[in-house]
Amino acid sequence: MIREDGRSLEQLRPIRITPNISKNATGSCMIEMGDTKVITTVTVEEGVPNFLRHTIPPQGWLTAEYSMLPGATLPRTKRERPSPSGRSQEIQRLIGRSLRSCLDLKLCLEKTFYVDCDVIQADGGTRTASINGAYVALKLAIDKLLREHKLKQNPIIDSVVAISLGLKDSQIYLDLNYLEDSSIDLDINLVLTGSGKIIEIQGTGERDSFSKEQLNSIIDLAFTAMPTIVDIQNIAIEGQVAEG
Amino acid sequence: MIREDGRSLEQLRPIRITPNISKNATGSCMIEMGDTKVITTVTVEEGVPNFLRHTIPPQGWLTAEYSMLPGATLPRTKRERPSPSGRSQEIQRLIGRSLRSCLDLKLCLEKTFYVDCDVIQADGGTRTASINGAYVALKLAIDKLLREHKLKQNPIIDSVVAISLGLKDSQIYLDLNYLEDSSIDLDINLVLTGSGKIIEIQGTGERDSFSKEQLNSIIDLAFTAMPTIVDIQNIAIEGQVAEG
Amino acid sequence: MIREDGRSLEQLRPIRITPNISKNATGSCMIEMGDTKVITTVTVEEGVPNFLRHTIPPQGWLTAEYSMLPGATLPRTKRERPSPSGRSQEIQRLIGRSLRSCLDLKLCLEKTFYVDCDVIQADGGTRTASINGAYVALKLAIDKLLREHKLKQNPIIDSVVAISLGLKDSQIYLDLNYLEDSSIDLDINLVLTGSGKIIEIQGTGERDSFSKEQLNSIIDLAFTAMPTIVDIQNIAIEGQVAEG
Amino acid sequence: MIREDGRSLEQLRPIRITPNISKNATGSCMIEMGDTKVITTVTVEEGVPNFLRHTIPPQGWLTAEYSMLPGATLPRTKRERPSPSGRSQEIQRLIGRSLRSCLDLKLCLEKTFYVDCDVIQADGGTRTASINGAYVALKLAIDKLLREHKLKQNPIIDSVVAISLGLKDSQIYLDLNYLEDSSIDLDINLVLTGSGKIIEIQGTGERDSFSKEQLNSIIDLAFTAMPTIVDIQNIAIEGQVAEG
Amino acid sequence: MIREDGRSLEQLRPIRITPNISKNATGSCMIEMGDTKVITTVTVEEGVPNFLRHTIPPQGWLTAEYSMLPGATLPRTKRERPSPSGRSQEIQRLIGRSLRSCLDLKLCLEKTFYVDCDVIQADGGTRTASINGAYVALKLAIDKLLREHKLKQNPIIDSVVAISLGLKDSQIYLDLNYLEDSSIDLDINLVLTGSGKIIEIQGTGERDSFSKEQLNSIIDLAFTAMPTIVDIQNIAIEGQVAEG
Amino acid sequence: MIREDGRSLEQLRPIRITPNISKNATGSCMIEMGDTKVITTVTVEEGVPNFLRHTIPPQGWLTAEYSMLPGATLPRTKRERPSPSGRSQEIQRLIGRSLRSCLDLKLCLEKTFYVDCDVIQADGGTRTASINGAYVALKLAIDKLLREHKLKQNPIIDSVVAISLGLKDSQIYLDLNYLEDSSIDLDINLVLTGSGKIIEIQGTGERDSFSKEQLNSIIDLAFTAMPTIVDIQNIAIEGQVAEG
Repeated sequence: MIREDGRSLEQLRPIRITPNISKNATGSCMIEMGDTKVITTVTVEEGVPNFLRHTIPPQGWLTAEYSMLPGATLPRTKRERPSPSGRSQEIQRLIGRSLRSCLDLKLCLEKTFYVDCDVIQADGGTRTASINGAYVALKLAIDKLLREHKLKQNPIIDSVVAISLGLKDSQIYLDLNYLEDSSIDLDINLVLTGSGKIIEIQGTGERDSFSKEQLNSIIDLAFTAMPTIVDIQNIAIEGQVAEG
Repeated sequence: MIREDGRSLEQLRPIRITPNISKNATGSCMIEMGDTKVITTVTVEEGVPNFLRHTIPPQGWLTAEYSMLPGATLPRTKRERPSPSGRSQEIQRLIGRSLRSCLDLKLCLEKTFYVDCDVIQADGGTRTASINGAYVALKLAIDKLLREHKLKQNPIIDSVVAISLGLKDSQIYLDLNYLEDSSIDLDINLVLTGSGKIIEIQGTGERDSFSKEQLNSIIDLAFTAMPTIVDIQNIAIEGQVAEG
Repeated sequence: MIREDGRSLEQLRPIRITPNISKNATGSCMIEMGDTKVITTVTVEEGVPNFLRHTIPPQGWLTAEYSMLPGATLPRTKRERPSPSGRSQEIQRLIGRSLRSCLDLKLCLEKTFYVDCDVIQADGGTRTASINGAYVALKLAIDKLLREHKLKQNPIIDSVVAISLGLKDSQIYLDLNYLEDSSIDLDINLVLTGSGKIIEIQGTGERDSFSKEQLNSIIDLAFTAMPTIVDIQNIAIEGQVAEG
Repeated sequence: MIREDGRSLEQLRPIRITPNISKNATGSCMIEMGDTKVITTVTVEEGVPNFLRHTIPPQGWLTAEYSMLPGATLPRTKRERPSPSGRSQEIQRLIGRSLRSCLDLKLCLEKTFYVDCDVIQADGGTRTASINGAYVALKLAIDKLLREHKLKQNPIIDSVVAISLGLKDSQIYLDLNYLEDSSIDLDINLVLTGSGKIIEIQGTGERDSFSKEQLNSIIDLAFTAMPTIVDIQNIAIEGQVAEG
Repeated sequence: MIREDGRSLEQLRPIRITPNISKNATGSCMIEMGDTKVITTVTVEEGVPNFLRHTIPPQGWLTAEYSMLPGATLPRTKRERPSPSGRSQEIQRLIGRSLRSCLDLKLCLEKTFYVDCDVIQADGGTRTASINGAYVALKLAIDKLLREHKLKQNPIIDSVVAISLGLKDSQIYLDLNYLEDSSIDLDINLVLTGSGKIIEIQGTGERDSFSKEQLNSIIDLAFTAMPTIVDIQNIAIEGQVAEG
Repeated sequence: MIREDGRSLEQLRPIRITPNISKNATGSCMIEMGDTKVITTVTVEEGVPNFLRHTIPPQGWLTAEYSMLPGATLPRTKRERPSPSGRSQEIQRLIGRSLRSCLDLKLCLEKTFYVDCDVIQADGGTRTASINGAYVALKLAIDKLLREHKLKQNPIIDSVVAISLGLKDSQIYLDLNYLEDSSIDLDINLVLTGSGKIIEIQGTGERDSFSKEQLNSIIDLAFTAMPTIVDIQNIAIEGQVAEG
């Protein structure tokens, strides 16, 4: 079966990661997955939130924020004030948890990593694109801190990859664009490690419930697609514009 | 293996549902799962949110709010102002999605159901207790509306059951209390239908990643525990205090 | 004259106080006055607000919050965000002042008592029920702190009782329910000590003004009703469910 | 006994009311009671709040706001944002109720009166000064509307006078200044009608409780002082600067 | 050409400054420019904002707030909550910058000056009236601090004068009232020092653009008008009611 | 004199405008002035704000928002919540006024143009870069609406160019970068039309006052630099990446 945009069901959209797009952030990249474009930056501040002060041994922290530029969608998205929407908070909590799970916080020396994901153009899968880009920006930031001797040991345990999938009329779709996403029965997001374990699974069948067997097929497909993304991330981490 | 509170790993805590605890709400109950106590009420208002107005055919809506009474925890929980915390918003979005998935909104006649879950005493699993209680309160509300001819047809498609599980040192724990929850490696919440399908899966391995096989064993255990909860819910829906 | 709910004009509604309803709060009870039900909890934190720091001699503080659960009323009450309504603030300030007036703050050792009154079901007189229950929860909390040697001396000077009354067509009503309250000419709340003095008087004749003589008759009736409430409070403070 | 400012216990501070101090408000005055100075303005808008729309017969509304200019106190008072403090809300609710009680809202023709009381210089008794000034501004506004035929009948039923009193070491003080107010045992505010009835009584014995007999002596003194204020108000309502 | 209020194009409205109108503020005045009336107060607190702590050498700070009383305009102006409007923030930033530019902050000894400008009656030119009055209140405050030896040296470098001008149909108007201001093509505000230099220029041609030559003629007129205001300020600073 | 980045005092930084960077916005571009990078988008909605409804003849509106991405600066900029800072509001009001001044709103047919300027990387002059880019995005949006017959006539009266300048040690600097800007005596922003008129002038001498002669030299230099920017804007409006 061929999708409207010409892909097969098991095919990712074209991915492109441009590293180092901001000179002020410690690490940064622009990630494009199809027409979804996200700027991710990582900045580092000394000190940790109150609940981690005086921890023994001392440890670092990582927190994430997610936002859409107003012109990223049609119709325009209003800036989220006074506070992020429930949806944005859910996404930024997911980004934060996913990246923390790949860090040994005890090696982060009471530093806080701020991960900012700002969507420039939205076409589905903004949370998974954010995670994929944020991992690259984080790795670039950490490499810089290591080079500058501001970290002593590399705290990264594993790489992080996120994939969105859907179920519609009993067929599994990989990496949905906005149009596909809005008519799907089951919406699932998986965050995996580069070494093949699951960090997060979020599956919502608001329009229809699903069986354990369907869930397993979906997970299998995610694992199949994962290495492609890992490869592109690794090229970008070398400082190259990476495409695939 | 026996847990600190005397349960086996696959055992639920004692459940108790007291229906009709508020005369002003259309449906209500108090649910206790171990020492976790939640008051759930359902009130009904005519009219739907803007994005559903003028839908053809007309349809109803259901929305949920979740909150903790300050004295429900030690130390005291501050009231969440100006807006609910990210955690609370995540939980109330989950409650709302879970209950909407069991409703045929087209049979809800442009009414909005407000589900309110207020935790009186917290000891782990407040979100799953909220969903289990909220389903009872919703069914009681709908039965009342049907008796009063304010609804023409029963919009409930299936019953809703939520179960929390955890993975620690490679062992699966069912229905965690607060102490267990705070030292777990993988935290998973499943929302199931009474007929044996999955509505929601949320699994977070912030402390450790997990394999597909472990995920499957966890899901299997949830399915084993589900009928007990369904039975207790059904007794409460008849208007009896239900225990199990 | 017999009222709609069968009471005489000078008769209280049935009162029931269930002590120790939350294991996490230091003191707690559920109070029911007729169909009005309020959960009151008292939690204790070390430290005092800024304006009391460095007072010589050191002293403690007590502060109160009042809120309605959304399902407590028909139509549903919206959660008060971003800040409590003017009415709620007025009530919680009254609760705080009333309970502070019965405490010797100098014996409270730089601790802050948080009194939380959450209305589960509203049928008139929620502020007076809150004060009557809060006194019980506070006494239970203080008794616990004394047993645990966290306080050295009992700081309670006197017990606290609150009573609502109304004037309608020149007749005085004791302890009004919601229906009576909404058609009253003069609405008066009295907070008394168990030893027979006045702590607070709040009388509002928005619909009609009133004479000094009428005010005196109202106060006399409040003093007549007070001992009944004191007796029920005392039983609950012993740890028993108290009714009257 | 002579007070620090030279007054006897039963003596009011000098009062001065300057009418018509703002050309843009419908009615306005500056009231000075001793060193307390308040600007009160009344503006009128067509339309009523939602809860009064479609009332039969149609009626008007009056609402009040109270605020302190930052430079009115030492130390400086911060502007109350995002919302008025509990104290300010309590005061503005009192001002609103007091003035509504003297209006026949059914003669107000679906207009809303906005009463604004802004304290320019604070020296105790700002809420009673606000009410006394606001009555003058309201009467000036209504007289203007009657002259312009925007109201058909005078909706004012009675005049409104507010008086603050205190009890200290068993002695009754009339019209307290800031210094006296901060060391008082019982603080009482009375709102009376010009014809000698009570509209509001608010008495707080946070520092000490009080007896019914003491309450009665306080009320008697308030009634003795009231005619002086009525006279000054009446001169200001004629458009003259009034002093007494 | 004669304007509607009888002035020539190059004529200021009558100015009146009443100094020392609040006994609690360190410095204060009421300024009237035509029918625009503003109360300005200056209060002083020990300490400086975070970004100035530990500056070497230590220095002081000055910050300004601007607000309108609701009854100052017709229709009534709503109180600006939760935060000041964009317009108010722009004005208070301008007031703060203008007054800071005339202060040697290094002579201000880690004190913060709070300038509060509250408009009592608005008829155009409220921001320039605020600056002219605020300079007087600031000078009065500093003179008091010098007399009380709380400042060692006078930190005032120069006096501050603000003037509003407009361009309409190629004619230049000095000191516009509200009616003139609302139909103007170019709106310009100039802040000058008493010694004849420019501190701020803000010119907005929203309705029409303007040439450099027109700008120069406008600036020339401002310089011509400035000495009149300086003279009135100086009389008020001596403690006299000043008119001109 | 040569500046640190190699430019002469009268030289602009390299400018680069990439048009059409968002497929969802009606018009968009990325503008780079030196290391300052801003994404500007224009989206169009039917309808106008309340104060313009029922205007005769009907007219359109344009409003602007300005924000910094957190990673645009070092240290990281916090997202501005609950509301934009005073600085951001001042900038977005300036952007809005500047672009409205070049539009005939009566030809805009009750549409509202939303201009969003989001700074990706900040290095001084973000407000002038925003205006220069926003004009391009607006022109692209209007050209699209004209092609789609959603506008009948071109409402653009003139093009808009913004230039920042500074005065330091009596020397005039064109187009300041961040380092230069933070040590300047006088900071001036000029908004000009392509045909050589002034729309806005904002000059602030917080650190030092300035003379009319200095102001005139600054304006002259701005006029000299303007045509370069106009040329680059025009190429971008043709849909080409424009550099200069």
